[in-house]
Parts: sequence; C-alpha cells; structure tokens
Amino acid sequence: MTTAPVISGFASLDALVRPRSVAVIGASDEPARIGGRPIAYMKDRGFAGPIWPVNPKRPTVQGLPAFASIAELPAAPDVAIIAVPSALAIQALDELGTKGCRAVICFTAGFAEMDEKGAEEQQRMTAVARKHGIRLLGPNCLGVFNDAIRFYGTFTASFEKGWPIPGRIGIASQSGAYGTHIFSAALDRGIGTQVCITTGNEAEVALGDVLGWMAQAPEVDVICAYAEGIRERESFLAALDLARRNRKPIVMMKVGRSQLGGAAAQSHTASIAGDDAVTQAVLDEFGVVRARTTEEMLDIAYAATRRIYPAKNTLGVLTVSGGAGVLISDAAEAAGLPMPPMPEEAQAKLRALIPFCAPRNPVDCTAQVTNDLKLISTFAESVAVDGGYSSILSFWSQTAAGRSLGPKLHEQMRAIREAHPDRLWVMSMLAPNKVRDYEADGWLCFEDPSRAVVAIEAMGRFGAAFAKAEAPQPEIPLPKVELPPTTPSEAVAKSLLDAAGVPAVPEHAAPDSEAAVAAAESIGYPVVLKILSPDILHKSEIGGVLLDIANADQVRQGFGTLLDRARHHAPAARIEGVLVAKQIPTKGEGGAVEMALGIFRDPVFGPVAMVGLGGIFIEVLKDVAFRRCPFDTAEAERMIRSLRGFPLLDGARGRPKADVAALAKALSALSAFAVAAGPRLAGVDVNPLLVLPAGQGCYAADAVIEVGAA
Amino acid sequence: MTTAPVISGFASLDALVRPRSVAVIGASDEPARIGGRPIAYMKDRGFAGPIWPVNPKRPTVQGLPAFASIAELPAAPDVAIIAVPSALAIQALDELGTKGCRAVICFTAGFAEMDEKGAEEQQRMTAVARKHGIRLLGPNCLGVFNDAIRFYGTFTASFEKGWPIPGRIGIASQSGAYGTHIFSAALDRGIGTQVCITTGNEAEVALGDVLGWMAQAPEVDVICAYAEGIRERESFLAALDLARRNRKPIVMMKVGRSQLGGAAAQSHTASIAGDDAVTQAVLDEFGVVRARTTEEMLDIAYAATRRIYPAKNTLGVLTVSGGAGVLISDAAEAAGLPMPPMPEEAQAKLRALIPFCAPRNPVDCTAQVTNDLKLISTFAESVAVDGGYSSILSFWSQTAAGRSLGPKLHEQMRAIREAHPDRLWVMSMLAPNKVRDYEADGWLCFEDPSRAVVAIEAMGRFGAAFAKAEAPQPEIPLPKVELPPTTPSEAVAKSLLDAAGVPAVPEHAAPDSEAAVAAAESIGYPVVLKILSPDILHKSEIGGVLLDIANADQVRQGFGTLLDRARHHAPAARIEGVLVAKQIPTKGEGGAVEMALGIFRDPVFGPVAMVGLGGIFIEVLKDVAFRRCPFDTAEAERMIRSLRGFPLLDGARGRPKADVAALAKALSALSAFAVAAGPRLAGVDVNPLLVLPAGQGCYAADAVIEVGAA
Repeated sequence: MTTAPVISGFASLDALVRPRSVAVIGASDEPARIGGRPIAYMKDRGFAGPIWPVNPKRPTVQGLPAFASIAELPAAPDVAIIAVPSALAIQALDELGTKGCRAVICFTAGFAEMDEKGAEEQQRMTAVARKHGIRLLGPNCLGVFNDAIRFYGTFTASFEKGWPIPGRIGIASQSGAYGTHIFSAALDRGIGTQVCITTGNEAEVALGDVLGWMAQAPEVDVICAYAEGIRERESFLAALDLARRNRKPIVMMKVGRSQLGGAAAQSHTASIAGDDAVTQAVLDEFGVVRARTTEEMLDIAYAATRRIYPAKNTLGVLTVSGGAGVLISDAAEAAGLPMPPMPEEAQAKLRALIPFCAPRNPVDCTAQVTNDLKLISTFAESVAVDGGYSSILSFWSQTAAGRSLGPKLHEQMRAIREAHPDRLWVMSMLAPNKVRDYEADGWLCFEDPSRAVVAIEAMGRFGAAFAKAEAPQPEIPLPKVELPPTTPSEAVAKSLLDAAGVPAVPEHAAPDSEAAVAAAESIGYPVVLKILSPDILHKSEIGGVLLDIANADQVRQGFGTLLDRARHHAPAARIEGVLVAKQIPTKGEGGAVEMALGIFRDPVFGPVAMVGLGGIFIEVLKDVAFRRCPFDTAEAERMIRSLRGFPLLDGARGRPKADVAALAKALSALSAFAVAAGPRLAGVDVNPLLVLPAGQGCYAADAVIEVGAA
Repeated sequence: MTTAPVISGFASLDALVRPRSVAVIGASDEPARIGGRPIAYMKDRGFAGPIWPVNPKRPTVQGLPAFASIAELPAAPDVAIIAVPSALAIQALDELGTKGCRAVICFTAGFAEMDEKGAEEQQRMTAVARKHGIRLLGPNCLGVFNDAIRFYGTFTASFEKGWPIPGRIGIASQSGAYGTHIFSAALDRGIGTQVCITTGNEAEVALGDVLGWMAQAPEVDVICAYAEGIRERESFLAALDLARRNRKPIVMMKVGRSQLGGAAAQSHTASIAGDDAVTQAVLDEFGVVRARTTEEMLDIAYAATRRIYPAKNTLGVLTVSGGAGVLISDAAEAAGLPMPPMPEEAQAKLRALIPFCAPRNPVDCTAQVTNDLKLISTFAESVAVDGGYSSILSFWSQTAAGRSLGPKLHEQMRAIREAHPDRLWVMSMLAPNKVRDYEADGWLCFEDPSRAVVAIEAMGRFGAAFAKAEAPQPEIPLPKVELPPTTPSEAVAKSLLDAAGVPAVPEHAAPDSEAAVAAAESIGYPVVLKILSPDILHKSEIGGVLLDIANADQVRQGFGTLLDRARHHAPAARIEGVLVAKQIPTKGEGGAVEMALGIFRDPVFGPVAMVGLGGIFIEVLKDVAFRRCPFDTAEAERMIRSLRGFPLLDGARGRPKADVAALAKALSALSAFAVAAGPRLAGVDVNPLLVLPAGQGCYAADAVIEVGAA
C-alpha cells in the first residue's frame, strides 16, 4: 500500500547518486586533497557531465575553469560537493539552495561527531537543507560513487589501490572508512561494487533513504550495509520492505552487539545505538541477513550475485573426501541448513556403481571416481535429480587443480550446471587458478567448505523472506483502546487487556470483606487475594498478595491482613479494597506454565513486544524473544518456538503440552493493543501469564500498564 | 613423571618419519600410480638414502634397480611402504618383519573401512605387526612426508599443485584426503608444512602416537590435527601432555560435532566417534584449541608460528577507523578476549595530541594522523607501553596500500615492533602486496580483523595451558574404595560416597516404624522417608519418597504407606525398611540449590564427571559440564562456573550465595572416588545434591552407584 510514495521518496536521491552535473565547493587544484580528489577521479575516468569547481582564489582548478562563487555558477548543478571548512559549510549550503541545487554531499567534519556546539550547528544545517528541499548527505561523510556513470563524489583514497570493477553490489554505510573497507575487500576478491554511499552524521539523508534508493535502483542487485545505529524509522522500514519485494537481498553488518562495542560506537559517532536485540528483531522481520564479519558479508554478497534464492533451501553434498563430508554436515547443522538424505533407490543405484561409496548425503563418491571419471557426472546428476536439492556443494579439494583430473572434472561440472541452471552450484576446492573459469560457468567457488555452507544458508533466508513478501500480508485488526489519563490499577489494566484479547484470570474487585467472600464463592476456591490500589504497582514487595485462600473465613482474615500491610508499608496509598481472583494451579500434572509478556517503547522502532518463560529463564538466562508490534499469531508462535526453554511448553519432563495456540493469540493481541494504544503507552508487563494445557487457554494473572504523558 | 618413557615411546616412530632407507613393496614404474608416486617424488626432490623398489616383474623401476622379493632386499629398510593389493598386504608385512624392518606404511585399502571381513583381516594385520614389533601406519592411509629430509612416503596427488615450502607446521590427520587438504590450503596461504602424517585405519599407530612424535620432534613447532574419533587413550593423553610441556600448540579439527556429522563419521570410517562433549572436555584440559573450520585452524596455526603465547592475554587495538574499532570490540567480547582500557593519563596524553581521537581502547587515532604521520608512532608506542597489552591489533584497511601513506606506515610499524618484540603484533589491512614485507618484519597479517581476533585469543589459551603445565601439578589424593559386588542400595551408595568426601544428608536406616520414629527424633523434624531396598533404584517412580514428615505420627503412617506402595509396585523387591533423612529446605530464602552430579564411563577416556543444575537446566537446556576424572577443587570450581545457570548459585534473584566451595570439594571428591573405584564402577548419579548458602555445605539427598561385572 505504501509502494508508490516510498519509491518516489527514494527516487528523490537520484540527483545525489546519478547527477548529470557536479559542482565542487572548495575545489582544490591538488588532486590528493579532499577538495581535489573528486575532480581528479571524475576527470581520470571520464564523467560525462560538466564539473564546476568553485574556488575564489584560482581561475582554473585541475585544468577546469573555476568559479569564484556559487552565485556565479552557470546553472544549478544536479549535485554539489561541499569541501570547505566547517565555519563556511552552512553558508555554502544556503547559497546552493538559493541557486536551485537540490542535492548536496557534505564532506566537511566538525559537527555532531565533535561536541555539543557541533551538534547545534548540525541542526542548523538540517534546517537549511529542509528550507530549500535539499537532499543532504553528511556532513562528515566520505561521499558517494556510482561507477556506472563514472561519478566519484568521494574523497576516499581507496582508488589508489584500484578502480571499481564491473559488478552489481551496492554498499550503504554509516562509516566512511568502513564502507570503503568493504569496497576494497570486495575488490581484492574480484567482487565488483557499482555504487557506494556513505552517510556520515546523517543530518538529513539517513541509512534508510540510501537502502531504499538501492532497493529500487537498477544499478544494484545486492546490498551490503554497515550500521552503527539506526536513527530513523520510517525510511528504514520502508526500504527493507521494498528491498524484499524487489527481491534484493540486504546483508548487514550492525556493530555494537557487545557491551564494549556499544560503548565504542557511542564514543565514535553521534549514533543512537538502539538496543541491539530490537534491531536484530527488525532485521529478522524483513529477512535481512546479519553478517558477523566483513568476510562473511562478502561471502554472502558473492553468493547472492547468482540471484538464486531458494524459498525452501536444502543442501546436497557431493564429496571426494569423507572427512570433508562430516565437516560439512557439522557446519550445515550449526547453520540450520537442512541436508535431507537421498532417496533409498538412488542410494542403492550409486552403491551399485561404487560399492564402498557413502550415498546418503553427504554423498561421498570416494577416490574411486578417479579410476572412472564418467562416474562423477553420474553421481552429480543423481544428487541434482534424485536428491532434488536446491543447493549443491561439491568438494574436490586440490584434486580440482591436478594436471590429470582437473580439466576432466571441470568439463563434467560445467555440463551438470548447464543442465540444471536453477540450482545454486557451489564448488569447494583448492585451485586458485581455476576459480575464474568455474565462476564463468556459473559456479560459486569457496576454498573453505564451512564458509560456503554459511553463504548457502543465507540464500535460503533471502528466498524465504522474498516468498513471504509475495504472499498476502496478514491483516492485523487493531482493537479500540482508550487509555486512562494515568497508569491504571491492576484490575483496570487487566480488563483493558482482556477486552483487547489478552485473557485475564477471572476476578472481581471487592471493596469490603463480605463482597470479597461473595466474589470468591462465585469464582470457586482456591482464590488469590491482592491489595487493590492505583498507587501500589509492585504488590508482592509489600506482601500484598495472598495465595491458597480456601474458604470464606480465610477470605475475611486475608482481607484484613492485606489492608493492614498496605497501611503499614504505603500509608499514603489510596486503597480500593482487594481483588479476588481464581487461583490457576502452577504445580504438578496439569499445572500452568508461567510466561512473561511485555511491551516497551524503543526510541526508534516504537512499541516492541517481548515474550519469555517466567522466572530463571528471563532473569538468569535472558531467554526472551522480541518483535516490533503489531504481528499475527503465526509470528507470535514463531517467537515462542524460538525460546530455548520452549520444550517446557512442549511436553518436556512429562508435562502435558501447553496451550501454545492460546499463548500465541494472546501475544499477537498484546502487540495489536500496543499499537492501538498509541504513543502514550509507555509499557506493559503481563507477568505471569499462566498457560494451561492445550485447549484450556491462558490467563494473565498480573498486569501493569504504564501510561506516560500525552 | 611420565616424561622419559613417553618420549622414548614416541621416538619409536622415528623410522616412519625420518628413515635413512626406504623400500616400496608393489613399486610401479608409472610415476602417477599409487606404487609409483613415492619413488617419483623422492627421486625428484633428492631423498638422500637408498630407495629399494620391490617388483617381481621388472628389473628396474623408474630407473632404479628393482628387487623381486622382500627377502632379496640388500638389508632391512628403515621404512617400507606397502602398495600391493589387500590379499597380499599381510604377507608382505610378515616378510618385512622377518627381514628385520620395524616401520611400515600401508597404503592398501579394503580393511576395517570396508566390512566385517575387512575388520577381521585388519586384526590379523595388527597381530602380525605386534609380533614383529613393527610400528605400522595404516592400512588405508595416504602416508607420510617429512620435507626436512625430502622423504615422501605418500601417494598424495597434492604435490601436483606444488611442493612443500619452508615452515614448521606438522599435520596429523586420520583422514588422508583432509590431511592433504590442510597441507594444500596452508600452501596456498604461504604457510609451510614440514611434516604430514595420515593415520588411516589405525591398525597399530594411532593419532596419539603421531601427536606425541610431533610433540618431541624438532621438525615441528605447531601441530594441526584432524580427528574423527579418538580410539586410543594412553598415547593420546600422553601426547597432549607432552605437547603442552614442550610449549607446542595443537589446534585440532574434531568433526562429528553434530548429530548429522557424527552419523556421517561413522559411515565414513571405522572410527568410534566418542561422545563429542567428552572429547571437548579432554581438549580443554590440555589447552588444545579446537577449530571450527579449516580456515580457522590455519589462522591459528599461522599466528602460532610467531611462538608468542601470552599466559595472560590482553588486546590493545590501534585503528584508523572507528567503525572497525567497534567491530573488533564485538569480536573480542564474543571470543572472550579482554580489552582493558588504556590508563587515564595515557588517554589524556593522546587526547592532547589529537583532540577528537578516541583513546580508550580501541584507540581510534582517526584519519587526523595522515596529516602528521609521526603521530602513528606516538600512538602505537602508547598502546604498547602505557597500555601494556600482550597482543596489539593495528587496523589500517587499504590505507596501508596507499602510495603516500603506505611506505611511511610500514616504516613506523617496523620500528615499533622491533622495540617490543615480545608482543604479538597483528596487522589488519587490505594490501595483499605488502603482506610478505610485514611478515618479514615479524608481524602477522590478516585481511579480516574478526579472524585476527579469533587467532589472537587462541594464543592466550595456549599460553595459559603452557603456564599451567609448568606450575606444580595438584596432587589428587584417592580415597580407599571397596565397591560391593553388585549395585548397592541408596543408603550404602551414600555412605560410600560420604566416606569419600561427598557429604550425604544425615540419615538412618530404620527396619521398623518405631526405629524410624527414633531416627526422626534424633535428626530433628521435618524429615524425609524413603523406601529402602536394593531392588528399587528409582524410588520416586513408585511413590517411594515422602516429604515434610513433621512428627512421630506422620512417621508411623508414612512407614506403612511406603511399605504398601513397595509391595504393590515391586512385589519381588527385597524391602529393608525405610530411610529417615534430614529434610534440607529447597524453597524460599536460604533454601538449597539443587544440583546433579554424575560419573559415567567413556569407552575411550574412562570415568568422566558431570555437573549441572538440577531440573530444567539439565533436562531442557542440557546445561552441564564434563571433565575426565580425577581433578582438583580448582578445576571443579571452573566447571561449576562455566554453567549457564551459574548465576543461580551466585546470588541471582535475591538468593544468598550458595556454598560453591563445598560443591567444588564434593565434585572433586566424586572424581577421585570414580578413579579409586576402578573399572567395575559403571556409573554414579548424585541427584539432587543440595547446596546450602555459603558456609553451610552441601548434601547428597539421593545417590545411585551402578556396579558392573568384574
């Protein structure tokens, strides 16, 4: 539904990345200086449009006629590069706006990355850009290049090592140095980057804008992104959504995962390094694959250049070494990549050809094939056709480089791939001089089979996300929610949630002890008594909860006890009586499993839902799952199943299976509630939510809704 | 204490790896055939000693005079290679023994890796080798090479790609194909392998013998090992111990980690792929670093060639990119490599030089240094001297390849390393053509900083293990244990363990109800009653345990209940009465933490101890630690602290800290008990062991000792 406006929004970066004319403010005659490099690069490589240097002190710059001021430019340039000192940058931006320029790349540093004063200056800069409707990249950025049109609006020194080579990678990076590190590392591996955009301090254009531009740009097939913190929600989410709908994989390095790294990220830039777990949940939601290392990022990007993304990925392995087969099996299991066995008949067929082969999968054809090379084709064909795997990893170690076997192996591998071009064919070999030949035939080549497995697994994650984007998107109906003006009592909180689909334990508020007895009799014993006050949030801390109340006398006695405790520990609290609630059994056969559900507000991504098993699972093991709100029950169930402690809901230790369907429904309903409640909702804490055996539902036994200022 | 015999034992492989004369049985005139390759290789590269081909059909083989039979050889060769069909191999081995040959490499396949009959043939082969005192490598192995003396007793085709280059890596592999894969991958990276030994079916020489030989051989500094399963205990343990005492790092790829991989390993070879977790525990014990991928193995071996193994490793990072600094911090935290901050004064000093640098650690000197290159030295010197880090990672990306900065950077890096040669200096850069220069200066070079971090961390693990080997080894006194002839009752089991230092809950056996009352009164209420029978191992399954017995009446009633239940569920069981035991509180403030301790007998490594937190931690999360028995309390405490659930013993959730010292003492005592009990001990299960708050000790509340046949 948001496609059209989003694309037009992202296309507003066209002038930044695909300009027909370029002005350089603070142009230098010296090709190695910051203001000189873009001009030198574009001249060297033949940018087709005009390049207009602005420099009041020189008639020419690097042989081009220079202009004394922005006002004197012959026209508004499609893009202007600002490379003047920080004191002059904002004025230059304003003059460019007045001239009619609508895209600016600002190299100049000394803004929010520096100090408070710099941050204020940057806010002024943003305001000037907005006033003119300028798409502003930076400040403090390394710029942009688009090799397709020989536009190099960057002062990176990495071209000293080599110019971009043909390829269809796009790099989007908040860090200039690391963005060009990715470019340079890819270059060393023969992977071509066509577009690289670094966003620096993100005064106006943010990472999401850049990802969105790449998601719709024909220059880019595969996106490599480097992020320290996501500052902007709308463009980021729209970009991830557009990328998956356009079947463009994004592989992202998001640093600051560790405590130490998070601290370093904050000292390094002006990033708000949002909670890493929330970012991870958002990346998972859109099928963005997060790389742990630069090398892994490039492995995945390299594999993605084949543009084969199996929606349901399976791995078949053909190996000449049993040891490698075992190692690959270990790696596949660790990566979560399924390796189903070959059909029995196919195994029998292969065993008839080589008696001591291991044909299950990994299919170990053993060194026997070197005696009868035609068998290689037979085995490969069987893995492809009988096995039907979407991805096939073929391990040949240094055999592929051998004088005798090498060429014959290559010939057969070429033929099998040509016969089945829809599969992802991956070669693991130690034959550096054969890599380009195999690649030309459509193969992917990895020296290390374990790295190959990680890259293959990622193709399946992309494929699954793309397939999901094509499927009808679930409608998540939002309830009507009217939040009270301030944080409500537990009873009100639970009734609000109950109305929204998060069932509450049957309970009644009782202003006096006889009303409490009546309530208990109607609910049925045993019951729980809880002090009822809008001013006491954490009841158990003051002894405000009584369990196992078994008869009317105990209700009366408990009522008095709770009022005494409340008066003693919280004399100023308004006491409205007690809550009488059904006591859900948690012990023994048929007892409920205690879960904790919650909502918190992420500063960037808004309401985020959390689910975990109660007690030690959350507190000691941090075993929780997160998801941006809202989401449907299928997604809720996926979250629940991702918990390490999930077996406890699934019949571990001889318990009956818990009502996971009801739990998923409650979690999804909570996520819809969070969105419907709007920005005044500061947080929700449903703890415990008691999940009974399958078919018997689940009940919130306690809940807090925190309401913030309007 | 075992040094001398072990070394002389391992030196018995000298003739296999360092022969002065070589015979080839089944020698081929064809240099590409299995029986031809070793001769061709040795002739090509100039092996100094005589090469004696045995071939009844030819007067010469590859230009060398051939012998018609083993008997006709001019003397017993130091080593003989058997390359005849399987039907002839054992006879050849026997003739070689008769001739006086004491070292044989058997290429021939068709033994235990094939079928039952092959396994029987292999046993015959082992017997023949033992009869003559022959050290036999294989059968079904790819052989040995020792490049130091140009001995190539192998038919690997990997030399077609390139001869070994100088270097001090030793490869020990059960898989021939994978062993030479490691060699070939190392070669591609410029890492030299001097010795490679593949063990095949291990009819006589096992992986441990080979590791032990390398541990004492001057040819090898760093050992790369590939294992599918460890078949032999004594030589393996002695080898790991000798290697760490000789400060030779072992990096091992042990496959079969996953379920799938384990299944593949068993179909691939005749390995007994022992429980992976036990192997892991043994490797940890001796400081062997386990690599997850071949690439990681080579990264670690490469780093180890510097022979700098810090006993207490810390990482200082000098970076020109803040983004890389964050990424490296994440990687270091994930690897468990400490990055302590720079001293405050040093940070202030660096900030005075470059105002917007980030001097904490990572030390980000920012691109400012390119304006004043001398600052690079100042920063590096401060990281080394003020920071005092044992390992220093210096990140320069493609800057190191730049025309202008590259040479100046190199000059300063050379000087700083020369001034501090005791540190591990590691460069992360994208400058393939500079790698050899930096390496010549003593630097390690990695493209990817994350891979560098993993390798650096491993050097510290080696260093810690080597330091531990030099420290006085703890004496672990063994108790006197007399196991009963068969599995004893719970009471006997606990008293045996109690006598060995695993404290049991105070308890008394009571043959009748009045004795039970007397016992309960002497212990103090509440007590636990348990049915007492040598025939009922799992009491709770038949309702044979009663808790919360609070007075004499309840004791009498409980006694009757238990006897009724026993008669009903296990009518044939011999009933000796009930056990009356002190009930240790497990709930609330001051309640005990339930642990489970156990002993099981690994088929290769003997008694292994296990510890875990009781309940879900073991059953759902598999959160347990293993260690070969016996071990001291320090090691026991390390195991306990390695548990994910350890915070529950350490004051999580507002509990008092548990008596971890007493728990460690009990665990160590159990490990000594397991050894003292001898091979008839099949297993021990102490579950639960109740650990009270610090200072109050721990008690076994239940215990089973399984006794096997003598």
